[in-house]
Amino acid sequence: MTKKYYSKEHLKFLLYDVHQVERLLEYDYYSVHDRATFDLFLDATEDVASEHFYPILTEMDRNEPQLTDGRVRVHPNMRKIMEIMGEGGWISSAAPYELGGNQIPTTIMYAASFIMGCANYSVTAFPFLSMGAAGLIASFGSEEQKAKYIPRIFNGTWQGTMALTEPGAGSSLSDITTTAVPAGDGCYKIQGQKIFISCGDSDAVDNVVHLMLARIKGAPAGVKGISLFIVPRERINADGTLTCNDIATAGLYHKMGYKGAPIVHLAIGEHEDCYGELLGEANKGLSYMFQMMNEARISVGLHATSIATAAYYASLQYTRERSQGRPVTAKDPNLPPVPIIQHADVRRLLLAQKAFVEGALSLEIQCSMYEDLRKVTSGEESERYSLMLDLLTPVAKSYPSETGCLSTSWALQCLGGYGFTKDFPQEQYYREVRIHPIHEGTTAIHGLDLLGRKVMAKNGQGIMYLMQEVMQEISTGEQHPDTAAAAAALKKRIQILQETTMHLFKVAQQEGPDVFLSDATLYLEMFGIMVMSWQWLKIANIAQQQLVNRPGDTFLQSKITCLKYFFEYELIKVDYLSKRLKSEVRITTQLNEEELD
Amino acid sequence: MTKKYYSKEHLKFLLYDVHQVERLLEYDYYSVHDRATFDLFLDATEDVASEHFYPILTEMDRNEPQLTDGRVRVHPNMRKIMEIMGEGGWISSAAPYELGGNQIPTTIMYAASFIMGCANYSVTAFPFLSMGAAGLIASFGSEEQKAKYIPRIFNGTWQGTMALTEPGAGSSLSDITTTAVPAGDGCYKIQGQKIFISCGDSDAVDNVVHLMLARIKGAPAGVKGISLFIVPRERINADGTLTCNDIATAGLYHKMGYKGAPIVHLAIGEHEDCYGELLGEANKGLSYMFQMMNEARISVGLHATSIATAAYYASLQYTRERSQGRPVTAKDPNLPPVPIIQHADVRRLLLAQKAFVEGALSLEIQCSMYEDLRKVTSGEESERYSLMLDLLTPVAKSYPSETGCLSTSWALQCLGGYGFTKDFPQEQYYREVRIHPIHEGTTAIHGLDLLGRKVMAKNGQGIMYLMQEVMQEISTGEQHPDTAAAAAALKKRIQILQETTMHLFKVAQQEGPDVFLSDATLYLEMFGIMVMSWQWLKIANIAQQQLVNRPGDTFLQSKITCLKYFFEYELIKVDYLSKRLKSEVRITTQLNEEELD
Repeated sequence: MTKKYYSKEHLKFLLYDVHQVERLLEYDYYSVHDRATFDLFLDATEDVASEHFYPILTEMDRNEPQLTDGRVRVHPNMRKIMEIMGEGGWISSAAPYELGGNQIPTTIMYAASFIMGCANYSVTAFPFLSMGAAGLIASFGSEEQKAKYIPRIFNGTWQGTMALTEPGAGSSLSDITTTAVPAGDGCYKIQGQKIFISCGDSDAVDNVVHLMLARIKGAPAGVKGISLFIVPRERINADGTLTCNDIATAGLYHKMGYKGAPIVHLAIGEHEDCYGELLGEANKGLSYMFQMMNEARISVGLHATSIATAAYYASLQYTRERSQGRPVTAKDPNLPPVPIIQHADVRRLLLAQKAFVEGALSLEIQCSMYEDLRKVTSGEESERYSLMLDLLTPVAKSYPSETGCLSTSWALQCLGGYGFTKDFPQEQYYREVRIHPIHEGTTAIHGLDLLGRKVMAKNGQGIMYLMQEVMQEISTGEQHPDTAAAAAALKKRIQILQETTMHLFKVAQQEGPDVFLSDATLYLEMFGIMVMSWQWLKIANIAQQQLVNRPGDTFLQSKITCLKYFFEYELIKVDYLSKRLKSEVRITTQLNEEELD
Repeated sequence: MTKKYYSKEHLKFLLYDVHQVERLLEYDYYSVHDRATFDLFLDATEDVASEHFYPILTEMDRNEPQLTDGRVRVHPNMRKIMEIMGEGGWISSAAPYELGGNQIPTTIMYAASFIMGCANYSVTAFPFLSMGAAGLIASFGSEEQKAKYIPRIFNGTWQGTMALTEPGAGSSLSDITTTAVPAGDGCYKIQGQKIFISCGDSDAVDNVVHLMLARIKGAPAGVKGISLFIVPRERINADGTLTCNDIATAGLYHKMGYKGAPIVHLAIGEHEDCYGELLGEANKGLSYMFQMMNEARISVGLHATSIATAAYYASLQYTRERSQGRPVTAKDPNLPPVPIIQHADVRRLLLAQKAFVEGALSLEIQCSMYEDLRKVTSGEESERYSLMLDLLTPVAKSYPSETGCLSTSWALQCLGGYGFTKDFPQEQYYREVRIHPIHEGTTAIHGLDLLGRKVMAKNGQGIMYLMQEVMQEISTGEQHPDTAAAAAALKKRIQILQETTMHLFKVAQQEGPDVFLSDATLYLEMFGIMVMSWQWLKIANIAQQQLVNRPGDTFLQSKITCLKYFFEYELIKVDYLSKRLKSEVRITTQLNEEELD
């Protein structure tokens, strides 16, 4: 029997009660669905995850993909899994009906992705990259391009990717050098190198369709000269047959974790025989790509959370089964040892995990709800959701990624020496989750994005909207004794956040952008804690309401406990972070590099 | 050429200038030495580490030990290395002359161990376990036992171990069940299971001598019935030949990191043919073992620091060589990219590492100096050093272990995507260092030790002595503008620490030991930050004095910079930790476990 790797009850509580995903059913686009179809979809996802994803979790780690005869060989089950993901409609789930999709809300699709990620993150990467790539073609492609690529990505026979990074252009995408030269009939000859391409080659599929950034010869320098191309591993002839498109898999990265998904180095057009199709207009590639990148960023935060969730349940099970030591109040060695879950510090490690994984999942669902609402509403209302989503994206990507690493570490620690061994899954989770603060923009990049761009975007309209949401939860929280203290504590920190932000803008004016942004990562952490606290208050407010009819209910009570935990142990970190952010002592910006030796 | 894996300049600055190890030469026991012999020893250590330890760092990780035909096969170079460790006098370095040792101060021996650990922690475990085991026999063994075991442990042909942990007795040593039955002529028949025994079997040596905890039949329950035995893998016949002693290697742990050192499961006396010798008196085993455990605890903190040190220098080199992006003040894409060390957040990650690894090394040297001074002084003075060492041991074990994990994570982060790959050593360091918050007592155990035992031991005499030391550095620091702010900040936190401690003792009286100790891990962290701040102030005070004669010296200036970094970014965490510790909201102690599901 499969061990528990996530909480269905909590997921559904967040979806239906806290974030009220059924609100979406009121809009035309989603009106054919109902709660029953959502539940069916999620239950089917759990079935597939338990039957196909979870059982190969360890195998995929121990037998990583191999590059043989120029082709990447992945776990042999992956082909079958991609078929299921295609035929069962997962890859196309969120796409509109006219493209063969099922118009499932992003929120429900992400919830499904979360379940899969809890079961096996490496497997999950394959279908969800395909989904994002198809989404880009759907948004910006011609009818011909849609017809050519989307059905075969959707049915799981072709893999979609995002091919951005180059040897000299990782965090700095403006330095991309892959070139595209017009070759007639709308085609471009492509040449360059792409590195760190997830699922960039695999024998689980018949073809790989790269959504690739390149620079058309003569385009302006920087991001303004980047275009987006569809560049398949095998190009499609007029008669539908495939021809090798001169994309060589030059290398396969050997990684610390997340080994089931192949990450490759591609050499493109080495024999001058690689052709791609321009997607949308020239020189707008980066702005197009941001559609997929923003989705991917939410997805990274979500999957840091999914790995940490699986680690949490594994550690919870262990701490219930393992007996060791006695309570500090009953040290008599003649008494039998107790399950270690009775020790206060083990409980602290467990509560810390629970408060993190459940709160972070709520944050990701919050973001996907804004994405759905942005899509189905219009005008000022849509703008409101867009701005809040833009503001939250760097936070939803980075805070769960950073804290997810800590959370899996706490899970590992619960097992003592066994946690360090391969007899238990914790060490694998610990290795896997470490990718998340890196890919789709490092934490530092998101700190710069948040403080340097998002907070001030549209004159700070986004943060004003967000604060309205937060204040609403505070008002609700103030009305009940179990949440009033938390509401007051958050209100105080909101003020600290505002003061800190104003202080930093003054620094920007007085000392320039380098000093202003020098501790942006700390600002991101502070913002993340505040946002998580808001989510916990939101969850607790709903739990509180439901407790009226279900007094003493353990599940609901646990939300109040997590709220207390998060506010007692985490929210207070805002105080020291703001202290540093408001300090006038400059260190990194004035550093003499020679001192580092 | 070997890349830099530690800073000789910093190590010697700490030894000679900050901690003034030459003070030890004034005592008879160490009087034959001088700075030149210390330097020779350390330089020879670096040579061996560079020639033999560092080159097999990756190999040992990729080819972990194997259990074949009942014997553990380790890296083939290990036999040669143990010979060198023996013949070159490393294993015996700190032992007295009469035992064939060289009476090197513990401080210098630990400094050598640090250099080795920076080069390759797995290799270092072998000789240093031998050293500890021989030390136990030297302290508590009969002349016959000393003659029988010590020379062959010292010459590297036999391996020493500490065999404590059992399947049901890890953190809870009082539950040890391995039995010893008198078998005449001072021998005991031993039977039981030992798990997680480092270097518990290996083909690098001809024999393994286990210093093993067991319970003599009829002994009282708990720690009062534990005795210490010498139990060799092959027992020594009267004619000097060896006979298999019925200790089977039942299993080899497959670990996340630190793979070069074999950790084994031993089945002892399965054929009722295992014999051991009692070491010292019956039922005093645990108190004897604490000699080796306390050394091992300092050693764990030291080696968390050594791994993080090597990771720091690897990341420093990368950030100098890797160009990516542009300063936030010069975003023109036509300008060439800059080395990433110029980006503020990369500098923050580097400074965070430097401040941690250099400060933590100072803390470990501080502890070993107290150990040396305790040994060569007497009466009240010796007691003073003993008490401070006892108090600092849980901190010196745990703070560097926990922060070492973060520090190697920062090192990994400096490399972006490459940090997650096996192309660079950071991912290995990240896996290796994770053992340290676990072995030799988990962090939680040390939190309980610090708050529940050490702080109040001898009516708080130890903490009073320590505070005198800290106040002395504060007085010195107050006298110079570059250190005055730090001195004032530390003074304030000392007061917070005292208030928090007093508050907790009140809680102990009013609410009992379970509530009192429930957040002991946070108390340990707070104490650790305070102790590290003290070390940085001590370092900076010396740097300040030397800057008078070497104005603008980069090396000395870097110490002032690290002081500022640590105080600006780390010391302030004391404020939120104390806030939680003084809070009256009880969570873990009142938790309904069912809520965790």
